[in-house]
Amino acid sequence: MPFKCRAADVIRSVVPLLVALAAASPPASAQDVLDYHHWLRQHPMPPLVIREQGSFFVGGQTKHVGADADVTIYQMYVQYQIPDQRMGHLPVVMLHGCCLSGKTYETTPDGRMGWAEYFLRHGRAVYIPDQSGRGRSGYDATPINQARTGDLPASELPPVTQASYQFAWSVFRFGPTYGAVFPNEQFPMKHVDELFNQMIPDINAELPTPNPTWTNLGTLAEKLNGAVLMGHSQSGFFPLHAALINPKGVRGLISVEHTCDTFTPDEITKLATFPTLIVFGDHLDDIVGSTQWPTAFANCENYVAQVKAAGGDVTLLHLPDIGIRGNSHMMMQDKNNLQIADLLLDWIDTHVEHRPRHH
Amino acid sequence: MPFKCRAADVIRSVVPLLVALAAASPPASAQDVLDYHHWLRQHPMPPLVIREQGSFFVGGQTKHVGADADVTIYQMYVQYQIPDQRMGHLPVVMLHGCCLSGKTYETTPDGRMGWAEYFLRHGRAVYIPDQSGRGRSGYDATPINQARTGDLPASELPPVTQASYQFAWSVFRFGPTYGAVFPNEQFPMKHVDELFNQMIPDINAELPTPNPTWTNLGTLAEKLNGAVLMGHSQSGFFPLHAALINPKGVRGLISVEHTCDTFTPDEITKLATFPTLIVFGDHLDDIVGSTQWPTAFANCENYVAQVKAAGGDVTLLHLPDIGIRGNSHMMMQDKNNLQIADLLLDWIDTHVEHRPRHH
Repeated sequence: MPFKCRAADVIRSVVPLLVALAAASPPASAQDVLDYHHWLRQHPMPPLVIREQGSFFVGGQTKHVGADADVTIYQMYVQYQIPDQRMGHLPVVMLHGCCLSGKTYETTPDGRMGWAEYFLRHGRAVYIPDQSGRGRSGYDATPINQARTGDLPASELPPVTQASYQFAWSVFRFGPTYGAVFPNEQFPMKHVDELFNQMIPDINAELPTPNPTWTNLGTLAEKLNGAVLMGHSQSGFFPLHAALINPKGVRGLISVEHTCDTFTPDEITKLATFPTLIVFGDHLDDIVGSTQWPTAFANCENYVAQVKAAGGDVTLLHLPDIGIRGNSHMMMQDKNNLQIADLLLDWIDTHVEHRPRHH
Repeated sequence: MPFKCRAADVIRSVVPLLVALAAASPPASAQDVLDYHHWLRQHPMPPLVIREQGSFFVGGQTKHVGADADVTIYQMYVQYQIPDQRMGHLPVVMLHGCCLSGKTYETTPDGRMGWAEYFLRHGRAVYIPDQSGRGRSGYDATPINQARTGDLPASELPPVTQASYQFAWSVFRFGPTYGAVFPNEQFPMKHVDELFNQMIPDINAELPTPNPTWTNLGTLAEKLNGAVLMGHSQSGFFPLHAALINPKGVRGLISVEHTCDTFTPDEITKLATFPTLIVFGDHLDDIVGSTQWPTAFANCENYVAQVKAAGGDVTLLHLPDIGIRGNSHMMMQDKNNLQIADLLLDWIDTHVEHRPRHH
């Protein structure tokens, strides 16, 4: 699938990145980087060469749901692809947010390449879970059946979150009010219906504490003998919780667009041992009637200050600060999604693997 | 991922196939076929070369679920891969059964290659949906929320089918009774827990008539400009219902292990225009206390007789009849799953595309 990108986008992508990363990175030729990005974006994609692909489950426990009836709940489905050429050493686990599934990282609503394939084409193995309780991981349907037969008061059913079009428009920052679109909006709004197709019921309210996805993510990282864990929105800090439960396989943490949770000083000390990247898009202050995003960003500034005080390597990347404008909450599907992906790939190279960029 | 197969298996696979297909097929050298299968199974797999991959949705409709709250329901998620070399002209759509998802056709419980990748490696594009109402296609959570808030009597909640270990053991024919395994069982029973991980709640009871998956399958086939549609178990006849709703893109029909539905004479006339393959495994009569499978098979004999009377090309393939023993209901995950896949690929070549085998 060929894809297009204007040279101006390329320049806007790379130059601020070089500025932002110059202090921490080994020296690199700006022209080399520009040439590399330019070539990659202007050429029709060659075939994708996969060394191995498939799917498996992590975690899960048996629940007795009746006489002679046991089922598995809380398991986590993981789909993966390993490229033939692995330029990077560490695989990347990409976890979706509320009311979505692993689909988040696949083909964009307007039919372009998603982050999963782009990371693969940059030589990284990619693992895409569905959160425990969602999508192909299933959920625990027992309360629904018990309510139906009168064995559970219906008032005790778990609330199921269905993200509406109106909810998404506001929370995902497509425009100031429902139906209005920011002039520089990067989300492919002509195809927003395809995003609405991706929005599925979220019954996480029935999950125990800790969320099984946290535990399963840690188990997955250990099973992979090292991985970068990425979360988005609802799951933005799931990688951090996973690292606190089971740090063995965790090598780096990426949070895309999540308000930063609060932790104890002891937890902050532990989290400071993992290179961490926190990313936000544009228009945080521009949603009419909502303080959600300014609050989230302020929480993250606080989190970053705590981790830095503990000696950690943590980066708070607010895209407009490096000249990248108009990104929504769904930046992995935005029109400039590969530009953002480049920033993440570069951050992994330099902050997690301490290697020069663009092998 | 290399995989192994004993030469005896290869011979058991191919010789009965040649016998079974000899009448309908163009002449082929038995030794050529043997050599081909033998080579393919004895060699470590070369990398998989993908021309294009991704995912998209078919269908879906808007539902008003509250003031300023609209959601999409009944959409169907479809994941696909197109190989770099397409030996076959027609893509294959593989649909899963009750209480399962598209995972059915991926990595087997014991870590071997599933039908999706095997078909790809034979040059066919593969499309894997999650049924509307399941997995990444989502479901309509409105009744659950309405019951919780008292706006719907809990007794009107849709029943949700959770296939238990005990249910699966019997219906999937792992052995005569729960815990007992047929001596020649082909399902990888040491890894049956990985199958239990795949079994997820099935809320199809809330779907309207006709099942949106039927309509969406027909739309998908038309969008693909022609496809072979395969269903399994619950969905075994979904391809036939899809063909009745929208025949434009339907080129061939495969039903794996489903009791054959009944149709009107007019519908039989229409269905007789599509080459159809109906497949059953072993031990149909060997489940203690169950007449489910003998009944299903008898229904299919009746269906086949009707379609043949209408001049249709329909094949009822009972694997033990050609010497292939021990197959479960989950034959796409059985130890000899690729042997069965070969039968399907050969059937598509000869009955749908009217081409010599093994290009």
